[in-house]
Amino acid sequence: MSTFLSLRRWVYLNLHDDNYRSVISTCINYFLIVLIVANVGAVILESVQPLYKTYKFWFNHFENISIVVFTIEYLLRIWSVAEQDQSRSPWAMRWQWMKSGGAIIDLLAILPAFLNFFVHIDLRVLRILRLLRLLKLTRYFVSLQILLRVIQRERGSFQAVIFILVIMIVMTASGIYIVENKAQPEAFSSIPKSMWWAVVTLTTVGYGDVTPVTTVGKFLGALITILGVGIAALPAGILASGLANELNQRNQRLELEFRQLLHQQGLNILTDQDELEKLRQRVGLPQEQMNDVIIQLIREREALHDTHSVCPHCGKGISLNKDQ
Amino acid sequence: MSTFLSLRRWVYLNLHDDNYRSVISTCINYFLIVLIVANVGAVILESVQPLYKTYKFWFNHFENISIVVFTIEYLLRIWSVAEQDQSRSPWAMRWQWMKSGGAIIDLLAILPAFLNFFVHIDLRVLRILRLLRLLKLTRYFVSLQILLRVIQRERGSFQAVIFILVIMIVMTASGIYIVENKAQPEAFSSIPKSMWWAVVTLTTVGYGDVTPVTTVGKFLGALITILGVGIAALPAGILASGLANELNQRNQRLELEFRQLLHQQGLNILTDQDELEKLRQRVGLPQEQMNDVIIQLIREREALHDTHSVCPHCGKGISLNKDQ
Amino acid sequence: MSTFLSLRRWVYLNLHDDNYRSVISTCINYFLIVLIVANVGAVILESVQPLYKTYKFWFNHFENISIVVFTIEYLLRIWSVAEQDQSRSPWAMRWQWMKSGGAIIDLLAILPAFLNFFVHIDLRVLRILRLLRLLKLTRYFVSLQILLRVIQRERGSFQAVIFILVIMIVMTASGIYIVENKAQPEAFSSIPKSMWWAVVTLTTVGYGDVTPVTTVGKFLGALITILGVGIAALPAGILASGLANELNQRNQRLELEFRQLLHQQGLNILTDQDELEKLRQRVGLPQEQMNDVIIQLIREREALHDTHSVCPHCGKGISLNKDQ
Amino acid sequence: MSTFLSLRRWVYLNLHDDNYRSVISTCINYFLIVLIVANVGAVILESVQPLYKTYKFWFNHFENISIVVFTIEYLLRIWSVAEQDQSRSPWAMRWQWMKSGGAIIDLLAILPAFLNFFVHIDLRVLRILRLLRLLKLTRYFVSLQILLRVIQRERGSFQAVIFILVIMIVMTASGIYIVENKAQPEAFSSIPKSMWWAVVTLTTVGYGDVTPVTTVGKFLGALITILGVGIAALPAGILASGLANELNQRNQRLELEFRQLLHQQGLNILTDQDELEKLRQRVGLPQEQMNDVIIQLIREREALHDTHSVCPHCGKGISLNKDQ
Repeated sequence: MSTFLSLRRWVYLNLHDDNYRSVISTCINYFLIVLIVANVGAVILESVQPLYKTYKFWFNHFENISIVVFTIEYLLRIWSVAEQDQSRSPWAMRWQWMKSGGAIIDLLAILPAFLNFFVHIDLRVLRILRLLRLLKLTRYFVSLQILLRVIQRERGSFQAVIFILVIMIVMTASGIYIVENKAQPEAFSSIPKSMWWAVVTLTTVGYGDVTPVTTVGKFLGALITILGVGIAALPAGILASGLANELNQRNQRLELEFRQLLHQQGLNILTDQDELEKLRQRVGLPQEQMNDVIIQLIREREALHDTHSVCPHCGKGISLNKDQ
Repeated sequence: MSTFLSLRRWVYLNLHDDNYRSVISTCINYFLIVLIVANVGAVILESVQPLYKTYKFWFNHFENISIVVFTIEYLLRIWSVAEQDQSRSPWAMRWQWMKSGGAIIDLLAILPAFLNFFVHIDLRVLRILRLLRLLKLTRYFVSLQILLRVIQRERGSFQAVIFILVIMIVMTASGIYIVENKAQPEAFSSIPKSMWWAVVTLTTVGYGDVTPVTTVGKFLGALITILGVGIAALPAGILASGLANELNQRNQRLELEFRQLLHQQGLNILTDQDELEKLRQRVGLPQEQMNDVIIQLIREREALHDTHSVCPHCGKGISLNKDQ
Repeated sequence: MSTFLSLRRWVYLNLHDDNYRSVISTCINYFLIVLIVANVGAVILESVQPLYKTYKFWFNHFENISIVVFTIEYLLRIWSVAEQDQSRSPWAMRWQWMKSGGAIIDLLAILPAFLNFFVHIDLRVLRILRLLRLLKLTRYFVSLQILLRVIQRERGSFQAVIFILVIMIVMTASGIYIVENKAQPEAFSSIPKSMWWAVVTLTTVGYGDVTPVTTVGKFLGALITILGVGIAALPAGILASGLANELNQRNQRLELEFRQLLHQQGLNILTDQDELEKLRQRVGLPQEQMNDVIIQLIREREALHDTHSVCPHCGKGISLNKDQ
Repeated sequence: MSTFLSLRRWVYLNLHDDNYRSVISTCINYFLIVLIVANVGAVILESVQPLYKTYKFWFNHFENISIVVFTIEYLLRIWSVAEQDQSRSPWAMRWQWMKSGGAIIDLLAILPAFLNFFVHIDLRVLRILRLLRLLKLTRYFVSLQILLRVIQRERGSFQAVIFILVIMIVMTASGIYIVENKAQPEAFSSIPKSMWWAVVTLTTVGYGDVTPVTTVGKFLGALITILGVGIAALPAGILASGLANELNQRNQRLELEFRQLLHQQGLNILTDQDELEKLRQRVGLPQEQMNDVIIQLIREREALHDTHSVCPHCGKGISLNKDQ
């Protein structure tokens, strides 16, 4: 039984724990990443008819093997996640994990293939559902997680922007419908049909398959484009400033925790490398950024010792304290 | 009379007061939102000729019912708004509300239908005017209000950008008119006609219905595009940074008020949930952001008690104060 | 002679001094703005052949009158600018003004018409040169001046971006030339010709008059577009953040000056309206922003009196000072 | 031998040292910049068949001379770089330089021409490789170096964005493939083929050579464009905010160093111009920004002397210190 538990612990560390690094855990991670990418590649290549006809056998076998691997991965994760918090019951821990986003993505990656045994799903739809395996990659890329978190946090702004965009599309489509309907009764036959032009114009895609031809239509189109061009590009701006904000906050949070712990534990920045490394893993920041913080800390200390009348935070002369 | 006033108060709370929450007020709000969206949907679908011919009866009845509902809503709002500030006369209060943006939008939503009784408005224009009902949704979405406020506050920047864009369009159109006029006498027959190409290019829509064909024209087009592409996308950048700024200021303002009140009233963050909730509604911030502020407050207090020589604002060691 | 000088002073105040406001100065400014806009409108309309042929007489007369007005304006400005700094000689002052940007724009607005007497300039080029009068509007719009200043200050970044864009265009054009040359020998006959496609693609205009048709060409095109799409939109981002920065700095600078002067002069924010107005004009900020600063000042003072242990700048509790 | 070393030092200063300025070093730099630009121009013009046939002799000679010059430059750089740090051995110094980015670019600029003697490279590919000489310009433009550093530092964000963009392209292409495959079996024959449309749409290029024609396809296309348009424009936002951040940090770093050194050395800002200039070169900032910092310093000092109760950092009244 002790062997069983230590095996479970070994699986947990190598499959689940992001901070645990060994040759085996690295191999498992890279193998899974390669398998996911290969799966997506297979879905894409299968859609090329000549390729699929020639290599049908291999495509099907690769799909079957992939399902087996992903199923084993999912079951091992359920089993081993009990190790995460030993103070709670294994099944409570497992149920909590199964409700998490990552676990649902893992399930979505294998579920359609199993459903196919019971209900016959259209092969094409099944193929698209296999693309959901791409989302499994989220686990392995921190920057992707940050981007998704920013998207989630700024959803209020996005909602507002998409709402305004929809209003603009409806108004624009209605306006152009009234103006161009007579000149182009086919392309602008109704407001829903005119929306295609409105979307293509306001997002600045501009295919050119439908364009206003009357002078009034061109004038309206030009006016709408000038006013609306900013709204469509707005989500990018929101995302970019949200991302910058998020990364900034991450760094500040780390620095705060780091400095507090240094003070509490009385660590020496230059000698206690092991303690610093532990702290780094606890906070979950890349090595690079950590070094920046340490260098800054050293500089500040030097500044404090050398020139007492310069503020260590902003480097500005503090004469006020000298007066006291 | 007391019953009358309490009815007016009841209507005011359920229809007007954003902070008052009851089952009835929520139902009314959702009913109005659904009705507005359905109205816009009806306008869009009516433009599809086959649909309109088949369901003309239902479309007309839905429109009539909508006007009745929106008219009742408008009248009830005028009547009940007197409750907002009881120290002032009801009609002064009502007149003040009728001049507000929200009331004007409410009026615009019903006015065209009533005007139609007196003056015959073209059915198509009437249809577009019914789309103004979309603006009624502004009342129900805070993020939309914020976005509109940012647009209004940054109107100086927008004015400058649109002004520069107009200058660029005029100059670009004049330049391409001189260069391409001989090669394409139809598409570039005059400066106003060339402006269509200029707008389509500078906003990066690029339909492709009109493109320069001469080498000089292509060179000029390329140069203008490279230099001008930034200007057209500028409004998005201004809006995004304005939005980030606005949200940032909102949070800071809340935190300032929150901290001041906590200090004044001597509230306990962890126990006095009711008082915190009251404050939250007064300031008008979502629950989520509130929790962030509280968590930060708790952390800061801990930091103060544990490590006195760490600044509670930025977490940086304060040796200066220790010297005194 | 005293009358002469007081006349010059009167002209200076009404024509030059932005802070001087009278009915006459406002009329002069609006008249000039309308004349400039009408001039640009005339240039645009003249290019429409039927219009020009019909109203040739009126167009020519309007142009002649405009030149006379702008010439008188220019001469009056030269003459009256001597009043700006009475400690210096009039001609030194005038020469200094003539070298300024605004004066050069004023000269460019009238020079081509006068040059036309000596050298015969092509009518079309002359027309475009008349569009330079648009730049005269810069004087009347503060937000435009700010935008131009940001463009000038960020010219380093723009230079870098345009430089990278040129490198990308050259590389992209060379790559697509090699790949597509055989399939489309006409559209991609040389690197310079391929640049048209590169510019149209990298700026996301995408006319569609030239597109890659081979699989390799499409793959290269897709890759370049994904990687390059950010670079072309970069100037907008730089401008937007530069603009936000500039406006932010303007406000901070004002606040700094304002607070220092309030402290030095011991002004009362609520009663000494005249002094505040003087300061506002000296700094050159709109009334609106001024009020924001004053309201903030009042709030801070209240915060100081009420709750001494809350920092007036950030509203965060300051326990450190209490300890002393 | 002393002559030899002083020659090496002379070469080092004029060729390598960015801070050393003499007539000769300036001439060498400008000569090299002009030669690089002329080389790129030659590559572009050679692709125009008629031009190349007529001036083949001159093109070939210019290429040969360029290779000789760039080779001599590279050898002189290797030889003279030993002067950079005289405490280390010349060859260690040289090897370190040869591994640097600038040295690799210099090598790439000449290597293909020499490889051509041994292996026959296709003339067209060789031509493109000659375009790598453009990268040599990086050495001479600071703003370009900053931009490249920002790109490198934000590579995490770019990776995430390109990753999400790839996911969106794959999903979009799969969706449109299923929907449009029957209506347009040629343009949407497989997922890889549909990707061309997905890339062209999501990057808002929108050539219009392939567009959805079915109603479902247009609806899907519109939905994808509205949601996806932000992602494609995201890199620009990240770059812009990263650039603003980088420039901001550069200035703050300079100010910190500058103020510390001023305090340590007790320099007088107004009289010790030589010392300030030395410091400026050490930090590597343009003269312009330096002057801003100095003016700010002078203002702060005045503020300190005049109004002691105004904080020198933010100009806000400090009543807290007065209380003590």
